[in-house]
Amino acid sequence: MRRTSFARWPCSIARTMDLLGDQWTLLVLREAFYGVTRFDRFQESLGIARNTLTERLDRLVGAGLLNRVRYQERPARYEYVLTEMGQDFFPALAAIIHWGDRWLGDPSAPPITLWHKDCGRSTHAEVHCAHCQGALTSEHVTMQPAGPG
Amino acid sequence: MRRTSFARWPCSIARTMDLLGDQWTLLVLREAFYGVTRFDRFQESLGIARNTLTERLDRLVGAGLLNRVRYQERPARYEYVLTEMGQDFFPALAAIIHWGDRWLGDPSAPPITLWHKDCGRSTHAEVHCAHCQGALTSEHVTMQPAGPG
Repeated sequence: MRRTSFARWPCSIARTMDLLGDQWTLLVLREAFYGVTRFDRFQESLGIARNTLTERLDRLVGAGLLNRVRYQERPARYEYVLTEMGQDFFPALAAIIHWGDRWLGDPSAPPITLWHKDCGRSTHAEVHCAHCQGALTSEHVTMQPAGPG
Repeated sequence: MRRTSFARWPCSIARTMDLLGDQWTLLVLREAFYGVTRFDRFQESLGIARNTLTERLDRLVGAGLLNRVRYQERPARYEYVLTEMGQDFFPALAAIIHWGDRWLGDPSAPPITLWHKDCGRSTHAEVHCAHCQGALTSEHVTMQPAGPG
């Protein structure tokens, strides 16, 4: 099956999906946000085939979201640490989690807890306008392609 | 290639990716947010194969993000309209767009403009804590699995 590559499309959604548009990739990122850094821990938590995990970690390293850092010399062992680019995906992930909890989750048992250290509460994401801080919902926004794509 | 289904995983990210974890699906949603409702318009804008588009539209209808509405009797013709569940994905999409613009986009020509009607400005998404309205960044949040998954 040939996979269309959207990497060159002049659209951030297309480019993002080209990178993350795979079930496992976002779950690998989720584990990284839980604090997982080592291959075996990723493998254990996700129950993912080792070759699939290798491929997804390599993709995230290649794209710049994870750094591969050697933590042991002989034998050489590596861990995978979120870069600034990877860390910066967190708000988008939090917004996805909130939507998923609302529409696809089990309300009696939300499976992921976000603990906001600043206010000391279990919380969820709200998406606001960067200028007026009002809610950025579809009713209040007109979305337009600014160029090709 | 067998595709692992994450639909029953007790994790909103897994469930969301099971639904959207495909390059085309999010781009079809993007078109819906641009206001596209008809099959031929989706097809034209995306340059997507008709059978692929049919499959993705059916998936989004089946998942509850789009409604299929008949707008002509003979021959029967349908349009695809965002449901409340579909509309509610907009904030997450806006957060993804902002990340993509920052890390994958061309800064001189952001390809999607979000016009916030409330304040009358071109804007981008910011993700805040639902309680204290502080920034919901990875440094300020501890993310924990609350149950299995």
